[in-house]
Amino acid sequence: MEGVKKRVVTIGGGHGSHTLLTGLKKYWIDIDAVVSTFDSGGSGGRLGQELGTLPWGDVRLAFTALASDKEPHAKLARAMNYRFNGGSSLDGHAMGNLMLNAIQLEKGNAQEALQEAEAWLGLGEGRHVLPVSLEKATLVAVMEEGGVIYGEKEIGASDGSVGGVYLDPIPRPYAPVLEAIRKADAVILGPGDLYTSVIPNLLVGGVAKAICDSNAKTVYVCNVATKKSETSGFKGSDFIARLAPYMMGVPDYAIFNSRRGDNGHVDVDEAAVRALGTEPVLADVLGEGDRHHPHRLGQVVRVLI
Amino acid sequence: MEGVKKRVVTIGGGHGSHTLLTGLKKYWIDIDAVVSTFDSGGSGGRLGQELGTLPWGDVRLAFTALASDKEPHAKLARAMNYRFNGGSSLDGHAMGNLMLNAIQLEKGNAQEALQEAEAWLGLGEGRHVLPVSLEKATLVAVMEEGGVIYGEKEIGASDGSVGGVYLDPIPRPYAPVLEAIRKADAVILGPGDLYTSVIPNLLVGGVAKAICDSNAKTVYVCNVATKKSETSGFKGSDFIARLAPYMMGVPDYAIFNSRRGDNGHVDVDEAAVRALGTEPVLADVLGEGDRHHPHRLGQVVRVLI
Repeated sequence: MEGVKKRVVTIGGGHGSHTLLTGLKKYWIDIDAVVSTFDSGGSGGRLGQELGTLPWGDVRLAFTALASDKEPHAKLARAMNYRFNGGSSLDGHAMGNLMLNAIQLEKGNAQEALQEAEAWLGLGEGRHVLPVSLEKATLVAVMEEGGVIYGEKEIGASDGSVGGVYLDPIPRPYAPVLEAIRKADAVILGPGDLYTSVIPNLLVGGVAKAICDSNAKTVYVCNVATKKSETSGFKGSDFIARLAPYMMGVPDYAIFNSRRGDNGHVDVDEAAVRALGTEPVLADVLGEGDRHHPHRLGQVVRVLI
Repeated sequence: MEGVKKRVVTIGGGHGSHTLLTGLKKYWIDIDAVVSTFDSGGSGGRLGQELGTLPWGDVRLAFTALASDKEPHAKLARAMNYRFNGGSSLDGHAMGNLMLNAIQLEKGNAQEALQEAEAWLGLGEGRHVLPVSLEKATLVAVMEEGGVIYGEKEIGASDGSVGGVYLDPIPRPYAPVLEAIRKADAVILGPGDLYTSVIPNLLVGGVAKAICDSNAKTVYVCNVATKKSETSGFKGSDFIARLAPYMMGVPDYAIFNSRRGDNGHVDVDEAAVRALGTEPVLADVLGEGDRHHPHRLGQVVRVLI
């Protein structure tokens, strides 16, 4: 199959997807970046609630990661990630969220805003950012201590432990998402917060099934650090075990960071991961703080696919 | 001099400059668009006051007029002129004003925002938008009924008659403005509101003198309609007579619309205009409403220069 351009679908949201896409951008591959659209409290989420638009935050981050290095695209990508001061009347909004909202409001639909952003940022042939759904839904967490928490932001900020999540109501997928997964040679899940960035995508009608039905190799990129309320104390196998019911299966491979960072390192119990049916791949993919290094991560993913 | 690229400086602001620049864009000429920066109440003015930035409204309009017709530039120009709903938390702001503010705040200076916008919009060689000044000042009108009014917006909304205007304090010019005027083959003043768009540029230190000292042909484009509080009841010669002290002279030519529109037509007293030392040029330059037609106006200006 050498010489054939690979088709990769990434599934996630937030800074995790931004990092992975930054690392994958330079390779000769097609990329469909599927991102979560259930932000309830960030700049994109707040604008979406007020203006009745898509919460554009995660879409913007994916777009700016995939932006061409040529001008004016690179300048625009940087401008789109500029964030106004939280104390001003612009309320901490990211510039690109405002821009995507403006186009959606002007055109009356989100699809044209996506096309517009592709042109602004010079994404190029075979590269797209796909909101997992264009419909409104609230992420709801069932807590291990009992009770439920409504809203992505509220779940992330909670002091309890998430037992599971669902979307209310269950939204229909944005059609190109299912098509991209069907055609994919590889589907990469993560990195990103397990319950608030990665799994929400799998809760959208038809997405998990499309992954099961496809011939794509599946790769899970585990976060570098554990996270309060979502994955506190998790070992490598815990991430896979929690992901499995939402994926309706386990990933073929899971990439774990092998180098100890400053905080919240994930211990990788390789035998347990393997027992679940997933091949663990340990590599030094550590970047700054508790994030992945985009190019180290991109290289490992490229080798796997 | 055929075969030598002409250098044109336009002086004005608002929709008048946008129209003229749209009409001039297609010709093989260099263009420096000098625009007023003393907006006190529009989207740009309000952001400037809150964020301590340049009031970007007139600069944005000039930029989007000069934008390349190629993509992504044309798409961006349209996006920059999108205006959020006045009732939303985005308070009627024009998208491009937000973008130019974002860059000024990120870079810490207005000049880099100008360079950035040139790249976004693909202005091309020899074409620039120049804020007349980067310094803060308030436009003050001395009213014929007595008393003064502070602020561009407040003057435009007044029920009295403006006798004259000044800037408090007198701001220094943005240096490239004087340089552009010195090198110009033609300086076009207007169209635009006489006291709130055109004359404020001439009140900035050194601008009027630079026009006098240059060898440029000077052309005044008179508005299609008169305006309450500023030019109510004015004949053609009244515009020239009121402009003269601020220009420290009269323009070589004045373009007047020859076709009667629906409202507020300007009567052109050709002999009186000529007696002031200005050659009147009557032409059908009427567009929609009480505005010029960009291409009709552009053609007349092109012939004159």
